[in-house]
Amino acid sequence: MYYPASVTRLIEALSRLPGIGPKTAQRLALYLVTAPEEVALGLAQALTDARQKATYCSVCANLAEGDLCAICRDETRNRNVICVVEDPRDVVAMEKARVFRGVYHVLHGALSPVEGVGPEKLTIERLLARVRAGAEEVILATNADLEGEATALYLARLLKPLGVRVTCLAYGIPVGADLEYADGKTLTRALEGRREV
Amino acid sequence: MYYPASVTRLIEALSRLPGIGPKTAQRLALYLVTAPEEVALGLAQALTDARQKATYCSVCANLAEGDLCAICRDETRNRNVICVVEDPRDVVAMEKARVFRGVYHVLHGALSPVEGVGPEKLTIERLLARVRAGAEEVILATNADLEGEATALYLARLLKPLGVRVTCLAYGIPVGADLEYADGKTLTRALEGRREV
Repeated sequence: MYYPASVTRLIEALSRLPGIGPKTAQRLALYLVTAPEEVALGLAQALTDARQKATYCSVCANLAEGDLCAICRDETRNRNVICVVEDPRDVVAMEKARVFRGVYHVLHGALSPVEGVGPEKLTIERLLARVRAGAEEVILATNADLEGEATALYLARLLKPLGVRVTCLAYGIPVGADLEYADGKTLTRALEGRREV
Repeated sequence: MYYPASVTRLIEALSRLPGIGPKTAQRLALYLVTAPEEVALGLAQALTDARQKATYCSVCANLAEGDLCAICRDETRNRNVICVVEDPRDVVAMEKARVFRGVYHVLHGALSPVEGVGPEKLTIERLLARVRAGAEEVILATNADLEGEATALYLARLLKPLGVRVTCLAYGIPVGADLEYADGKTLTRALEGRREV
């Protein structure tokens, strides 16, 4: 009742976004109401537009426009090496490192009995079909948390019988990090994975 | 280049909002692309709608729909007492306290030579016209920072010659606060403003 009805509705719509509390929603709404036309209506337009155009790649389930994502369209990528990630953001993180030249498979989450995410909610069937159709290696690059590791173990059990090489990313001290700030679990993994110099 | 073009544009549009960095913009964009239809398009609609409907009150410059804001339309408010604030959010904060029964005047900022905000950028002329047309008291409720206090002093100098009572909010220890965490300036003001018990 403190703001005009249309502004109140905008505040409510913004509060529904993840990580946006009521105070931030209020601040953003007042900014958007008074901001230059192109900022506010540009956002509304970009949002409608992205909803209309953005789809999922029919092969890897990454974000796409049209049937295939940019990576699956790229003829120079090695289709025999599939990197499995949880989220389209993980694809971006990998791509920014500019080191991986294979293709991806986006699960859209990780197994989590607590949150009711079972295998049927992820794109696992589609991954198995891809591997059966032919692949040399599957790199499991799920997150290094409980759900991510459980998902990787689950996938490894399904994939190995298909005769494909199954690997996962190395755990260890992040490059540039101070040893004194590394947690015990990371140090344990770093020790386990130690190499000859 | 890492996301489809429409998603990239949405990330850019979100990054333009105050307090939203590139990481948050990316997270929000990916959420909005995959969120339920009513959340994403509801936001776009609420935004377009608020831009079309929200205006400024022709009397007090508060947010309104139509010519007058809800407070200036309210016949029970005392039009002889004008509370001057910097921002529509300050009106909401005052209204939530349910203690003020006068009307408001929204300056839309505070004087700030550093940021190039001079008196002509605020609604000061309109405030003076209102006071000349008749008012008993002007309460200066600008923020308790440097710009807010400078603005209050500036306004007081313009308003007093008009024969109106000019007051400002009391400074002191916030209710419920621990004395040990109060800063020196607040304590100084609280001491200066001490009262007989």
